[in-house]
Amino acid sequence: MTTYDGKPLDRAALDTLLRRRMFYAQAFDIYGGVSGLYDYGPPGCALQANIVDTWRKHFILEEDMLEVDCTMLTPHDVLKTSGHVDKFSDWMCKDPKTGEIFRADHLVEEVLEARLKGDKEARQLETGAPVAEAAKDAEGTEDKKKRKKKVKDIKVVKLDDAVVQEYEETLAKIDNFDGKDLGDIITKYEIKNPGTGGDLELPVAFNLMFGTSIGPSSNLPGYLRPETAQGQFLNFQKLLGFNNEKMPFASASIGKSFRNEISPRQGLLRVREFLMAEIEHFVDPENKSHPRFPEVADSVTLNFLPKEIQQAGKTDIIRKTIGEAVKEGMVDNETLGYFLARISLFLVKIGVDEKKIRFRQHMENEMAHYASDCWDAELQTSYGWIECVGCADRSAYDLSVHQNKTGQFLGVRETLKEPRTIEEWEVDLNKKILGPKFKKDAKAVEERLAQCSNQKEREQWAEEFKNGNSISVIVDGVGKLDIGSDLITVEKRKRTESIREYTPNVIEPSFGIGRILYSLMEHVFWSREEDVNRAVLSFPPTIAPTKVLLVPLSNNPAFVPLANSISAQIRKLGISSRVDASGATIGKRYSRNDELGTPFGITIDFQSIKDNTITLRERDTTKQVRGTIDEVLQSLKRLVDGVEEWEETMTKLPLFEGQEVEA
Amino acid sequence: MTTYDGKPLDRAALDTLLRRRMFYAQAFDIYGGVSGLYDYGPPGCALQANIVDTWRKHFILEEDMLEVDCTMLTPHDVLKTSGHVDKFSDWMCKDPKTGEIFRADHLVEEVLEARLKGDKEARQLETGAPVAEAAKDAEGTEDKKKRKKKVKDIKVVKLDDAVVQEYEETLAKIDNFDGKDLGDIITKYEIKNPGTGGDLELPVAFNLMFGTSIGPSSNLPGYLRPETAQGQFLNFQKLLGFNNEKMPFASASIGKSFRNEISPRQGLLRVREFLMAEIEHFVDPENKSHPRFPEVADSVTLNFLPKEIQQAGKTDIIRKTIGEAVKEGMVDNETLGYFLARISLFLVKIGVDEKKIRFRQHMENEMAHYASDCWDAELQTSYGWIECVGCADRSAYDLSVHQNKTGQFLGVRETLKEPRTIEEWEVDLNKKILGPKFKKDAKAVEERLAQCSNQKEREQWAEEFKNGNSISVIVDGVGKLDIGSDLITVEKRKRTESIREYTPNVIEPSFGIGRILYSLMEHVFWSREEDVNRAVLSFPPTIAPTKVLLVPLSNNPAFVPLANSISAQIRKLGISSRVDASGATIGKRYSRNDELGTPFGITIDFQSIKDNTITLRERDTTKQVRGTIDEVLQSLKRLVDGVEEWEETMTKLPLFEGQEVEA
Repeated sequence: MTTYDGKPLDRAALDTLLRRRMFYAQAFDIYGGVSGLYDYGPPGCALQANIVDTWRKHFILEEDMLEVDCTMLTPHDVLKTSGHVDKFSDWMCKDPKTGEIFRADHLVEEVLEARLKGDKEARQLETGAPVAEAAKDAEGTEDKKKRKKKVKDIKVVKLDDAVVQEYEETLAKIDNFDGKDLGDIITKYEIKNPGTGGDLELPVAFNLMFGTSIGPSSNLPGYLRPETAQGQFLNFQKLLGFNNEKMPFASASIGKSFRNEISPRQGLLRVREFLMAEIEHFVDPENKSHPRFPEVADSVTLNFLPKEIQQAGKTDIIRKTIGEAVKEGMVDNETLGYFLARISLFLVKIGVDEKKIRFRQHMENEMAHYASDCWDAELQTSYGWIECVGCADRSAYDLSVHQNKTGQFLGVRETLKEPRTIEEWEVDLNKKILGPKFKKDAKAVEERLAQCSNQKEREQWAEEFKNGNSISVIVDGVGKLDIGSDLITVEKRKRTESIREYTPNVIEPSFGIGRILYSLMEHVFWSREEDVNRAVLSFPPTIAPTKVLLVPLSNNPAFVPLANSISAQIRKLGISSRVDASGATIGKRYSRNDELGTPFGITIDFQSIKDNTITLRERDTTKQVRGTIDEVLQSLKRLVDGVEEWEETMTKLPLFEGQEVEA
Repeated sequence: MTTYDGKPLDRAALDTLLRRRMFYAQAFDIYGGVSGLYDYGPPGCALQANIVDTWRKHFILEEDMLEVDCTMLTPHDVLKTSGHVDKFSDWMCKDPKTGEIFRADHLVEEVLEARLKGDKEARQLETGAPVAEAAKDAEGTEDKKKRKKKVKDIKVVKLDDAVVQEYEETLAKIDNFDGKDLGDIITKYEIKNPGTGGDLELPVAFNLMFGTSIGPSSNLPGYLRPETAQGQFLNFQKLLGFNNEKMPFASASIGKSFRNEISPRQGLLRVREFLMAEIEHFVDPENKSHPRFPEVADSVTLNFLPKEIQQAGKTDIIRKTIGEAVKEGMVDNETLGYFLARISLFLVKIGVDEKKIRFRQHMENEMAHYASDCWDAELQTSYGWIECVGCADRSAYDLSVHQNKTGQFLGVRETLKEPRTIEEWEVDLNKKILGPKFKKDAKAVEERLAQCSNQKEREQWAEEFKNGNSISVIVDGVGKLDIGSDLITVEKRKRTESIREYTPNVIEPSFGIGRILYSLMEHVFWSREEDVNRAVLSFPPTIAPTKVLLVPLSNNPAFVPLANSISAQIRKLGISSRVDASGATIGKRYSRNDELGTPFGITIDFQSIKDNTITLRERDTTKQVRGTIDEVLQSLKRLVDGVEEWEETMTKLPLFEGQEVEA
């Protein structure tokens, strides 16, 4: 992993900076802290607000999306229907002796990777290469301290070639395994508690939602939402009405969601409470074209990692325009493609390194229970490639399940320009016989037979009846039943429709703001050539927590009135600034603000008092220009709004090489 | 309660509008809804975002506050220490037959008020006045439907004069009662389940926090935060460091908090999940002056309702400048006064009717467990005066309790310009005797004796010892103990300090954004003179959800290119707009947007295609001016930024009285 200027990244140094400058802090740390919970301090909070603001402009304002703000508290029934109560879980293993709990897939990864490293070292020792280098190879650019610790824990034992291959295959497919698979692996490879060597219980599912109860006397069980999407789905019919019944359209929501991680690590990348920004783009399943796709088709080139390549055990990137990718069918449709391009443009706009973005397609078994296709925007960090934006095609899953559960129509009724003739297999039920025959189960049986919109199945039924057979049907909660032609009639019929009724498909770009924020910080971090301890965070001006630092040359009271006046003028321009009138050297004060990523600095010196001129300094180049207060503030405004680049400012205002002492 | 233009407010009409236009919706309504939980639709969500944005500029940016974003999930220990586990509760009564649960104070209010109304009607009947009028008097401007229902439920029974007086006194003091008091009242006045007449159990405390558990296996009990404040207190030391150890300073936080209401009613005014914006201003307890107080002292006049007036059973308003109020001591100090003034300025800026704001001081027994003084900004609504902003002096309560619990210093160490001499009573413990004497209790006894910073008490102890007596001390968990002079020595000693150590006091302005948002909607709601069904929401342009509606004269395709081009230009100016190119009449389309509170409209007609001129319409006056696209967009930008008033625009651009058909 490399820094902003292409040097090796020292993650420990970055982390120290981020905590020292209060970008973030362990929540409740004076109480010992709670893992997976973090507070954002002033620069982190401002950075987050600026990213969200840019997101809102880039997506919601630009595309006229319908923003909603739904509650986090969600009753059990909603999340039961959505599938989260049954399927939103990870597998955990308990050590019955110590009471420790491990996330099963992470444990398998950790142990097998350690064994592979031990094997690699053993092989290196045989050939005489230094051990530390071998470990470094295996772990990439991970920080030194941690590497040393890991190396110490690893047993240097050579494995059979066949075992190495088995381990590697297991690791490549780790996201595909369910609890039983993981249990088999743990047994087969004798995976134990890494701390004590003790035996572990077999994996059990742990639901990742935080439960609570709403109202007094625990009368309504509920959860904290695991995603903002459900509120948007439940309001679909109202949103469609708000949009004057016009399709397609998108809703969007920015808010916190929750995930009760089993044992969160990796700092801001795996947390229990996180800010999400989610778009639900509702689209006609028969027409997934997008009117604005031509705007991005040829101009946006992305790094793709499609599923076929991964299934072959590789990670080679295919680089092409989104236009080509959709044309070839690698990306399924224009709407999905449009959003992948817009996601990439957004990430680059906020300062993410374009070379460290890839779009990885989910493999079949890896997909969430609701998704029919999914591409993740992954950002490269010192922890590996991290999923920061998911872009899933949730098909008609959510709207359908909620409509079925509540009986409320969640779909579109479109008046057809010309009525159309439809020929379909239809089912008539003979309720007079069904009722008495199935008694209390009759309703379930009727629903099963009537609900079915699978034309293939109905055609087969008709075929069976034609051949004088009965059909065999599985009814939920009742079991397998034989249905004869006395109970139902299946016929192919023509009908004319002037209204088309359909359930929209949903394309969902879903952003984890905290993960993006952390990855961004790795991408913009670097150190001055002359001093590795002088760190800089090169945020783009629109994203930087504070835009400008106001620095009087010294704490001489003569500077106070002018500093106050300039500060007020900057505030009036809507630009966030800070004054540092401390006694520290100018160089020290600028260094401090380089660490905060403040892109500009204004120095007030004795000359300023005489002739109203001030200097403007740019963070990355440390170059300064000088002009009247008016000239400098006008340039500053344009720089912060992103309509002027520093190179341009340098041509407008004269270079200044005076007072700054970089000490 | 009156509308924006001073007519009686029809709350039902407003509520219908707000739901129809999707300002808000009952959350999970397709699942039957959950009371106390609401979703904001697109206009409500945009309105909320604009209020928050204005708040951030008015407070955080203007005062260089340190914004933080802390987690909502909070471990039990933190809220135990803060007092919320023990004291953040309401009293509830259960009907053992039906299982219904009532909030005790609300039930008492409801029943006694109904009896007083019945009495009033009985008295009116005696004198011959019409009953409906009497009910109307009693209930103010409540909406008709509800009033009728209530009147039906009320038993018209005349009460003794003494009973009327008792009821009225009880209602005036309702906020002062604890569970036992409420139980006594329920018994004494024979208050039953209003629906069934059944007996109720005595009130029991119900904690209002939502509980959950963090991590697998319920290993860490926690709650959803009831306020954003605790996160700010816990980070105090880091924030002080971030502020270069300078005092005073303020932190601020905007985020959701939670309150598990027993039986929420009153729509958006009493909800279980709500957005708060809270400031914690940390100040030296010995110096509560504020450098910017002179800016507001004479220019801001407020409506005060101090506690003395309320304790006398009255609600008369005292109107004076904040300068006078602080000078007289009605408002305790400059910092508190400064914030009251700034709160008022903020509310007026977002469109709240200044005449419908009052500042009410809490009475002694009414205050939250942490507060030493509190003024609420209350807004007048059809539900009565509603607390929308609390401005509490939390003294050193929170920092002290967390410091005591964790042993981490949460205070300020100030280097004194000149060392100072302090003379204080100090206590020395004779641990050799204490230990053996109190054994397992020794630690608690030592803590009790050493912790005490009450100089008066120590002086008394010295006095007792001087007189040859022992002293009597109550030790938590141990009981009352006699301590002789063999166990401790109490002496007055002098010492010189060059560092002063103190725990800051906290002034906390705390905003309930949802309550402000709802009250604001009542304040800006009115109907056109010519048609009561043509409702308008007169939001100020900065706050309005959408700033401008773009209306092509008809859905003639000739207008499309120009509409798209103007729409893109408006977007580039950062102004939120919507296009309505539907076939409805211009009048209908404007009416729809009057209901959404859109302040401006741009009409594109056939003239526009010829000469690039368009009209600009203002919502409240429905007046239109005409100019070139450039002229109109420049005016629009200034109007939306709040630097130009409509009157001024009318002098710049010619009046247009053409195409709009108000039908």
